[in-house]
Amino acid sequence: MRITFDGTNLTAAAVGDEHGVSEREVEALESKAMTAHAELSRKRAAGELFWMELPYQKATVEEILAYVGRVRGRFENFVVVGIGGSALGNIALHSALNHPFYNLLTADKRGNRPRLFVPDNVDPDLIAGLLDVIDAEKTLFNVITKSGDTAETMANFLIFRQALAERLGENYAEHIVATTDRSRGALRRIADQEGYQTFEVPEGVGGRFSVLSPVGLLSAAITGIDVRELLAGAAFADERCRVPDLWKNPAYLNAVLQYILYWRGHSISVMMPYSQHLRDVADWYRQLWAESLGKRNSMAGGIVNVGPTPVKALGTTDQHSQLQLYVEGPYDKVINFLTVEHYAEVVPIPNVAEAFPAIAYLGGHTLNELIASEQFATEQALTNNHRPNCKHVLPEVNAFTVGQLLYILEVQTAFSGELYQVNAFNQPGVEEGKVITYALMGRSGYEDRRDRYLKAAERNPRFVVA
Amino acid sequence: MRITFDGTNLTAAAVGDEHGVSEREVEALESKAMTAHAELSRKRAAGELFWMELPYQKATVEEILAYVGRVRGRFENFVVVGIGGSALGNIALHSALNHPFYNLLTADKRGNRPRLFVPDNVDPDLIAGLLDVIDAEKTLFNVITKSGDTAETMANFLIFRQALAERLGENYAEHIVATTDRSRGALRRIADQEGYQTFEVPEGVGGRFSVLSPVGLLSAAITGIDVRELLAGAAFADERCRVPDLWKNPAYLNAVLQYILYWRGHSISVMMPYSQHLRDVADWYRQLWAESLGKRNSMAGGIVNVGPTPVKALGTTDQHSQLQLYVEGPYDKVINFLTVEHYAEVVPIPNVAEAFPAIAYLGGHTLNELIASEQFATEQALTNNHRPNCKHVLPEVNAFTVGQLLYILEVQTAFSGELYQVNAFNQPGVEEGKVITYALMGRSGYEDRRDRYLKAAERNPRFVVA
Repeated sequence: MRITFDGTNLTAAAVGDEHGVSEREVEALESKAMTAHAELSRKRAAGELFWMELPYQKATVEEILAYVGRVRGRFENFVVVGIGGSALGNIALHSALNHPFYNLLTADKRGNRPRLFVPDNVDPDLIAGLLDVIDAEKTLFNVITKSGDTAETMANFLIFRQALAERLGENYAEHIVATTDRSRGALRRIADQEGYQTFEVPEGVGGRFSVLSPVGLLSAAITGIDVRELLAGAAFADERCRVPDLWKNPAYLNAVLQYILYWRGHSISVMMPYSQHLRDVADWYRQLWAESLGKRNSMAGGIVNVGPTPVKALGTTDQHSQLQLYVEGPYDKVINFLTVEHYAEVVPIPNVAEAFPAIAYLGGHTLNELIASEQFATEQALTNNHRPNCKHVLPEVNAFTVGQLLYILEVQTAFSGELYQVNAFNQPGVEEGKVITYALMGRSGYEDRRDRYLKAAERNPRFVVA
Repeated sequence: MRITFDGTNLTAAAVGDEHGVSEREVEALESKAMTAHAELSRKRAAGELFWMELPYQKATVEEILAYVGRVRGRFENFVVVGIGGSALGNIALHSALNHPFYNLLTADKRGNRPRLFVPDNVDPDLIAGLLDVIDAEKTLFNVITKSGDTAETMANFLIFRQALAERLGENYAEHIVATTDRSRGALRRIADQEGYQTFEVPEGVGGRFSVLSPVGLLSAAITGIDVRELLAGAAFADERCRVPDLWKNPAYLNAVLQYILYWRGHSISVMMPYSQHLRDVADWYRQLWAESLGKRNSMAGGIVNVGPTPVKALGTTDQHSQLQLYVEGPYDKVINFLTVEHYAEVVPIPNVAEAFPAIAYLGGHTLNELIASEQFATEQALTNNHRPNCKHVLPEVNAFTVGQLLYILEVQTAFSGELYQVNAFNQPGVEEGKVITYALMGRSGYEDRRDRYLKAAERNPRFVVA
């Protein structure tokens, strides 16, 4: 069950010299790439990239499965309380590997597993709305924040905790699982004080690289996803992605190709799965790619303001929304398809009278043939119009291939960080917004700045249309 | 209930000369803008832009409401069978104006209105999955395609029609509503032959401008959205958006500002609602903006390969995913916030012990204050980092303001087409993909090309990692 990476349509032979990459260009980057490989290997050996070892944390998996076994059948709902890297991986795994209308299945069809909710926002209508459809008494809340003090997560946590207390008095601890740092942060202290089940986000695992840690595994396991297979797929990818040969390593080759095209003006990276199941992998990847590579400073300290912009699209749906722009607009994109050879279902299209030639050709085929033909057609139309594109081909969507795909994309991202010479593992650009929020919300030590911020935000009446 | 457009942070005064717009630059475009206005007015008067008259189609609305009244209480599910402009508006209205977990509410809490599904893809797992959770006997299918022969829509339609026939024998016509052209296309002929209820997509209303026609109104009305108010909001916007003064017209001013920034390298247009309800408005807008403006040719015929790339983001969620890139990456974006002054719910954040200073500041506030503070903080952080941004401020999210917003964005798009000098109402770039699909699927007249296409798609083994 190998995923194949196919970069044919990124080449000059396919899309022309102006927008395609030549073999020589790739070869010219081989030594830079081998330096990047050496750096990654060094950091990994030094324990700085512990996310690369997550496929091998068998004890953690067994601990999670034991817990899932203990609570089996007890809860109607499982709510992930997290945001960013503490939500996007959960959503991606759920969409990829559970039934497309999972929450609407009967309990019986869900194998008596809980419904899953990931309310990753602090919109009051969303949170109040969720409380309309879940009974706290029948709900298990999984609060996830590595630092233990993420504002959005902890605000929602305090609201759900109170909803539990109102319903259950003081006996709500069994309704909360905390996934957080081993020792630091407010959530860890509350969890210890109130006696929650906890799981650990290990050192060296940043939020956007945490999907294969307890952050992503618990919600997966409790909804019936085979997390052992998921990690087996990731381990398989690790074997493939540590090969120090650009031409044999799917993560490295794609990273180098995209890197070359970025500097030639193709700065928008579209991920376009032809699979409803994989649509939220594109969202997970958006965070991975944007936060890791979107940086002001290079590792050497210079100002670079670099970073491709990831865009989520979905085939066939976005053929009717974005394809016009992709085919005819500026030459500023690379399209990354995710394709699937065998879907779980085969759905025949019934015949219709020959009197309707505009649709009669569909009859006797399957939806499977239609979506595959449309993916092929979109790929060819892009290529014919000199639009570079590539694809990861999944034999099917299952836990093994999804684990493999996520790991390949993580390595591709980390390796790209080395190519761009930026730190792929921090996010300094979000700090300023946090400080302004603290000031406005009156956090101790920040409140004095409030007036200054408010004053700085004065309107320019000529540019306001009220 | 006016929406305010605020372009303050697009100005040089706010974000600096390099990435901001000066009053003089806008003034220099006034005469071009007035030409654009005159062109739009001429086309409207000539009946070419009938989508602009949709707010006033009262007879159509009454016809829809009468139909909804007749079928009231009869169906448990309502399935929109459409794609692109025949799905995105329906989804946007539903997310914006119905309960955030509408399909999980009890029938009673839904006012005995049907659940809504919009399976806008031909993924076999999606369609088979939908048939797992709906009973065709209790379902009303609304097939929407203007041409009457859209491949994805008609394939899914044939599948659902057969599911109905299997369940109900020949008496399934009352389970299908066709929304299509008045006289042309396969769907119109089948509908007439089999006796479906039909609604019309009027002339002069392209898919992406059709949300206020029966395309979007039927699913809205049947799920309880006040469609009269929706159109009243659009009519109110029409009054505001026909004013021939850049500085008084929210659609024109924003279009001109974005146009100026596009040519100065800010070619990515991010729509970032701070509202879970408005997240799919951003998706609807993606189609509107991309298909309308992403064009190879100018109206005069020259090759321009123009068009901003729309991106969907969501506050606060994407602060933890995309903001790092927006603040520190390349200066290639304009951020368009959608903000909400009053949410439907007010959700207090409970107090927590002062022993946890990192989160104690949250207590006693509301989620409403938190999301507003974060929006403000994000806006200021972007501005301080010379990142142009603007916002539409909605007093609240209701049918009137949503109707207003959609109409403003439609006019902004059409007006932008005039500025870019491209035809905002066609999509020639998607034709080639359709032809290739026909060839692969064996449509009569196209099948000879199949081998040629397959041959053209040969792999380059050096760029494939299997």
